[in-house]
Amino acid sequence: MHTLTVDLAERSYPIYIDTGLLSVDGLLEKHIQGRQVCIVTNDTIAPLYLEVLQSHLREFSCSTVVLPDGEAHKNLDTLNNIFDELLADRHNRTTTLIALGGGVVGDMTGFAAAAYQRGVNFIQIPTTLLSQVDSSVGGKTGVNHPLGKNMIGAFHQPQCVLIDTDVINTLPEKELFAGLAEVIKYGLICDLDFFLWLEENIDDLLRKDPIALAYAIERSCADKAKVVAEDEREGGIRAILNLGHTFGHAIETEQGYGAWLHGEAVGIGMVMAAELSALQGRISLEDVARIKRLIERAHLPLVAPNGMSDDKFLAHMAVDKKVLDGRLRLVLLDEIGKAVVTSEIEVSDVKKALAACR
Amino acid sequence: MHTLTVDLAERSYPIYIDTGLLSVDGLLEKHIQGRQVCIVTNDTIAPLYLEVLQSHLREFSCSTVVLPDGEAHKNLDTLNNIFDELLADRHNRTTTLIALGGGVVGDMTGFAAAAYQRGVNFIQIPTTLLSQVDSSVGGKTGVNHPLGKNMIGAFHQPQCVLIDTDVINTLPEKELFAGLAEVIKYGLICDLDFFLWLEENIDDLLRKDPIALAYAIERSCADKAKVVAEDEREGGIRAILNLGHTFGHAIETEQGYGAWLHGEAVGIGMVMAAELSALQGRISLEDVARIKRLIERAHLPLVAPNGMSDDKFLAHMAVDKKVLDGRLRLVLLDEIGKAVVTSEIEVSDVKKALAACR
Repeated sequence: MHTLTVDLAERSYPIYIDTGLLSVDGLLEKHIQGRQVCIVTNDTIAPLYLEVLQSHLREFSCSTVVLPDGEAHKNLDTLNNIFDELLADRHNRTTTLIALGGGVVGDMTGFAAAAYQRGVNFIQIPTTLLSQVDSSVGGKTGVNHPLGKNMIGAFHQPQCVLIDTDVINTLPEKELFAGLAEVIKYGLICDLDFFLWLEENIDDLLRKDPIALAYAIERSCADKAKVVAEDEREGGIRAILNLGHTFGHAIETEQGYGAWLHGEAVGIGMVMAAELSALQGRISLEDVARIKRLIERAHLPLVAPNGMSDDKFLAHMAVDKKVLDGRLRLVLLDEIGKAVVTSEIEVSDVKKALAACR
Repeated sequence: MHTLTVDLAERSYPIYIDTGLLSVDGLLEKHIQGRQVCIVTNDTIAPLYLEVLQSHLREFSCSTVVLPDGEAHKNLDTLNNIFDELLADRHNRTTTLIALGGGVVGDMTGFAAAAYQRGVNFIQIPTTLLSQVDSSVGGKTGVNHPLGKNMIGAFHQPQCVLIDTDVINTLPEKELFAGLAEVIKYGLICDLDFFLWLEENIDDLLRKDPIALAYAIERSCADKAKVVAEDEREGGIRAILNLGHTFGHAIETEQGYGAWLHGEAVGIGMVMAAELSALQGRISLEDVARIKRLIERAHLPLVAPNGMSDDKFLAHMAVDKKVLDGRLRLVLLDEIGKAVVTSEIEVSDVKKALAACR
């Protein structure tokens, strides 16, 4: 078993990564403080993994909430289902919520834990590649609003993250591809060697080779843990983790949450960011071509949604969380493996970058 | 102008107390960091004080949200109105929310600020006695759930609290009385001298004598600031601020939020806590009589709601936030001016304490 640590002083926690971890006794239990737990999962994951998880929790008073699957349900109304269950079963401040699912389940469970009785513990058991390499680590939690993605939430760190790499076996291909977008992101923003490794090994990942997957997951988590440890609440450097996300969130919000998978939107968003970086002379056109090639090999779309105009992109991007006093800020690339956050953005260049993805 | 400080290291903030503070230029502005503000108020307070507040904010981009007045609206649905406005007007992470109203407005605005884009600044301008002496200070924010009061929320400290004691002039008598419950609370839990002062001066408070009111507000805030500074997130001593609240919340939840004012429910809750303290031999029956006398002089009810059975009380009390691993914990009195938190509670004694208030 590989154990990484997210180093955040008194809020530090381990990330456990291995095959078959969901079947290991005693691992989860040591991160549960009280006598109560509440598993939050969705109707896709529950039939697959709920029973094995429950089997480790027999000594606890255990509630279960099964949410409908999908980004379309990541909102305050669905969140309230978790509070309903917690109160109906009289969970107190020592309870632990356990998120068993992908990014939507993890983000909502984390926010429910942040807000229930003004804060209780929670544990992340991510079941998609995307949530394993990104959303389960770092404490960003929240829900969407019709006018903006992840606009309502909290920074709330889990007690631990438990990553069973075997769950990728049941993951639909489309979600595997979406997860690879965030994996590629780490190479682009801070890890050239990993980018080179991905160019060599992406085919192994696409056929779910367990050794390659375990390596990619661990390296992604290590990269993320390092950035989060430097800047927990995104006062600065952490923003680089949002490469492609300002463009991507615009697509997700405009198309309706769930129409595009988050990873699909981030994939093309990274291409747009790369195009814009080249327009600013930060990277070469050869770099852009190389980035597009890797994203294409991950079966991710390279063309923006039909009919989504420049104005629609710009309107959604104007409410991005990185906007400061009306000025758009974006994550761009100074080279492959080195991201930068800048507000020196010409709208005309953004439009050119969008045009390159039509 | 009196200035108290809530001493919380990098989260420290001032409480300004004086007559006419809403008309003072330059006080509020220095606690606003960005160019955007959003005033949240209700339909009772807006006609009275919104214009004067807006007049200080002409240099900012200023949005306004007017919520329906009353505890019945302190829920996730109404909270979403604030997010709607913030996103429609493209408020970014440097925005400042301003709560202009009583405890409901303050609690909801504070929670909206805690959750919007995972946390923005806010300012409290409390317009009821209760919110001036209690809910605006200390960073407890949140909304109610049908199954429990204040069950969804966050600890989120304001940038400052601005208390204009003149607003009490427009406060309905019933709300003045409700506020006095929390004022009396401070005497009971930690400030015998203040309790003695209240016995001498409560009639001045009831006729809204400005000097007496200013003194009571400042002393209450000073007592609260001291407790909060010791224990921001209620790991221990802060729980004494909940004297009477476990009983009171049961009444508010059972009767429907808003049927009893929070202060009214806390008033009789403190009587119940006093009765239980006497049953445990902590205080004398003379002390109980003295406490009841002061609460009665504040025109607060001394009789529990008709038809609210012991079982209903106990069921609601079982989801109280102080409950730990199934054991009820209550704030009781060891003497007038000294509270204690204990889980040594016999249900039979709770029933006797309730019976004393039938």
